[in-house]
Amino acid sequence: MQSLTVALDAMGGDFGPRVTVPAAVQALSHFPELKVILIGDEPQITTQLLQLGVTPHSRLRILHSLRVIGDAEKPSLALRNSHNSSMRMAIDLVAEGEADACVSAGNTGALMALSRFILKLLPGIERPALISSIPTSTGRKSWMLDLGANVSCDADSLFQFAIMGSALAEQHLGHAPRVAVLNVGTEEIKGNDVVKRCAEMLNKTQAINFVGNIEGNKLLHDVADVIVCDGFVGNICLKASEGTAQLFIDKIRASMTASSVKGWIARALFSSLFDELKTLNPDQYNGASLLGLRGIVIKSHGSADVAAFINAIGEAVHEVKRQIPSHISDRLEAVLLERHY
Amino acid sequence: MQSLTVALDAMGGDFGPRVTVPAAVQALSHFPELKVILIGDEPQITTQLLQLGVTPHSRLRILHSLRVIGDAEKPSLALRNSHNSSMRMAIDLVAEGEADACVSAGNTGALMALSRFILKLLPGIERPALISSIPTSTGRKSWMLDLGANVSCDADSLFQFAIMGSALAEQHLGHAPRVAVLNVGTEEIKGNDVVKRCAEMLNKTQAINFVGNIEGNKLLHDVADVIVCDGFVGNICLKASEGTAQLFIDKIRASMTASSVKGWIARALFSSLFDELKTLNPDQYNGASLLGLRGIVIKSHGSADVAAFINAIGEAVHEVKRQIPSHISDRLEAVLLERHY
Repeated sequence: MQSLTVALDAMGGDFGPRVTVPAAVQALSHFPELKVILIGDEPQITTQLLQLGVTPHSRLRILHSLRVIGDAEKPSLALRNSHNSSMRMAIDLVAEGEADACVSAGNTGALMALSRFILKLLPGIERPALISSIPTSTGRKSWMLDLGANVSCDADSLFQFAIMGSALAEQHLGHAPRVAVLNVGTEEIKGNDVVKRCAEMLNKTQAINFVGNIEGNKLLHDVADVIVCDGFVGNICLKASEGTAQLFIDKIRASMTASSVKGWIARALFSSLFDELKTLNPDQYNGASLLGLRGIVIKSHGSADVAAFINAIGEAVHEVKRQIPSHISDRLEAVLLERHY
Repeated sequence: MQSLTVALDAMGGDFGPRVTVPAAVQALSHFPELKVILIGDEPQITTQLLQLGVTPHSRLRILHSLRVIGDAEKPSLALRNSHNSSMRMAIDLVAEGEADACVSAGNTGALMALSRFILKLLPGIERPALISSIPTSTGRKSWMLDLGANVSCDADSLFQFAIMGSALAEQHLGHAPRVAVLNVGTEEIKGNDVVKRCAEMLNKTQAINFVGNIEGNKLLHDVADVIVCDGFVGNICLKASEGTAQLFIDKIRASMTASSVKGWIARALFSSLFDELKTLNPDQYNGASLLGLRGIVIKSHGSADVAAFINAIGEAVHEVKRQIPSHISDRLEAVLLERHY
């Protein structure tokens, strides 16, 4: 079995080493091929490891870093002051070939700016995009991008997102994913110029299985495997879905945890329904991927708990095994070839 | 009691007179001051009235129209071929002062184009916007605009939407509404140039109670009374929330309607919770309003049933009583004055 190494920004996120260290330790038993480099304040990491009764070993190394990039730091400033930060050092390890992927729950803007600066973009890609899987009513997953890496995009960027998303989803699904553009209507005349031009481009290529426009209310309905949008719309739309799901879950939870006979019956009879409903909250997943880079960078929610952070590490493992960046390159080449011949 | 007249496009929507005529008849008993002009195919309308045992009277008139604007017609084409259509005639009645407002469940794009062409925009308004109330977790309503009238907007348009939304919401709330801009983060540095510039403008005016940015996951959390966005984002975001709510409602309904002991218990114990959850679906409301015009135009869902169409008529009645267009003008003037002195 070939080993693979993931560099973890142990300091990122709301909880830092209290979440990232136990997650790393547990991930090592989930993924036998995994090696982890924990990058962060060594005393803090060691304290966490001691509490778990673990000492560094051949599959678990610590790399000491001097600073942490704050959540409120502007990406441009973070970029300038990034030296010796846990996030920067994690990305550097990927650039140097010391790690196969990195995972951070830190400042998204800084992670993007640093990844782009250090790892560089794949040829033919103008902007990286943040992609995440979302649940659907059928139990299958869809993927959605961009989720906030780019607050304004042109049609070329959206088209590249479609290619990148399709390459990633194909490695999960094993067949050509259905790609749709998020829009205000399904008809071709609907939407702004950017989505209309992107749809035209997608209609022309054979390399993408383009199925047309998708409306917001069909987001979780398994009508497309890859949903393409700019980061402004994608972020707001996905959060709207998450917020609504959470509201429903909270209301139902309140009735299920009531210390009444009704609450008892609800728990006894309807906990499986409740568990099913919880799986419909897009927020349940963790481990968004920054696509378009010459390397694998996974962004965890800042608020991720241990289980969620393990999911993010798992996504890194999957993407290393599947060599997602090279699949994206292949797909881009196929589209370019199509245009030339 | 002063009467008010609403012109109804009886032919619009998925069900035409089968919904609009019974809704009109019932609305007349809900609103004693209301007079209705039903515009559409007279034989069809009369048939519906006969089934209800009603004949036209001083508060219920029929105006015969020759054609219906189709849902798939392009607005530009609909505009050219609109003469003698039920939608056009309804708007004409408002322009001529024969009606105080019009309501249509027909083609949204055509309704917008015709309203703008016939009624004209209020001075200082560059684009009309579609606004609707949405439910919140506290039981209070918020208002959201634009919901699809404009697929791309500049900062000036968003600023005008904020003024219009604030004027409308104030007439419901009785105090200065909290106005927020829909964005990818709450921090001022977040978002695209359009929302950032709009926020700057809102920060400078005293005429609007601007409370900052709102993220998609807070849409239904009663953190703002008026949520401002362009029609592309607004339409997709609201539909994402509706689609998610509907998914949850459908899953719960399935367990409640099961013909098992569990289904019986669910109905017996949890129907009030279920009813509460249904009120959290933004889709429950009907009667979006086209703001920025020199007249009152209400857009009903195409799929509205009788109860929903009555809500749309009710919104028209409310807006006539509150003279929303003149409140918008007053508010615009206040902002202009502020800039000059």
